[in-house]
Amino acid sequence: MFVLDERLEADSLPVGTREGCLVRLFRDARYPWLLVIPSMGQFREWWELTADQRAQVDRVLVDGARVLSGMPDVQKINLASLGNLVPQLHWHVVGRRAGDPAWPGPVWGHSTPRPYEPGQQAALIAHLVGELNLNPSR
Amino acid sequence: MFVLDERLEADSLPVGTREGCLVRLFRDARYPWLLVIPSMGQFREWWELTADQRAQVDRVLVDGARVLSGMPDVQKINLASLGNLVPQLHWHVVGRRAGDPAWPGPVWGHSTPRPYEPGQQAALIAHLVGELNLNPSR
Repeated sequence: MFVLDERLEADSLPVGTREGCLVRLFRDARYPWLLVIPSMGQFREWWELTADQRAQVDRVLVDGARVLSGMPDVQKINLASLGNLVPQLHWHVVGRRAGDPAWPGPVWGHSTPRPYEPGQQAALIAHLVGELNLNPSR
Repeated sequence: MFVLDERLEADSLPVGTREGCLVRLFRDARYPWLLVIPSMGQFREWWELTADQRAQVDRVLVDGARVLSGMPDVQKINLASLGNLVPQLHWHVVGRRAGDPAWPGPVWGHSTPRPYEPGQQAALIAHLVGELNLNPSR
């Protein structure tokens, strides 16, 4: 039985689901930043998934990366599963811009997030649901 | 035709090859840290590989992660493909320990690497070649 980690839930917004994954938007308007959380089980490390489950998650990561790379000024995608602070397995997909606050360093722990404006947030979530072909979250 | 990026070459040591990937040891004795570099083409982003190529690389990542997780005191594996500084696609597989210098933050750009002692380096490379079933580098 999958239960979303509390900190992941607090730090991000639901976007939708696909292929056994939750797709969420990180609450930081400074970077286009998705979390992809495998929910077909309770996992901590990547190798705990079967090869088929990993391939499923990978398709979501690849599509997420492609969509973020099409957003304005995004030059590089960062993909990472770290889990030093939150043990529940989750992937970060982050669109990086040469002028972003953490560039060229890593975004994790860099500086205080800036929340989305409500209208911007809703529009981005709708865009992501469509582009990633997600089942929208209620 | 694949050519290894100069900076990746300078920052790491050859360990071996498998399934179209170079496996290299990052020159920092403070963390068990592998680089896995797909060499079946010149890539920048993960989605430029076919699904089959990604599955190949993923098997190397998973085995690398498992082997590093068996090293003393390693508590969490970090997997990441960033590429903000080096555009050639490469994956980091890093074994993290609760007491390591960057813990719980990211290792990238944190502090100056500490080189391996020659004997320790040779022993670790031999261990990795065996555990990962690599074709050893000349």
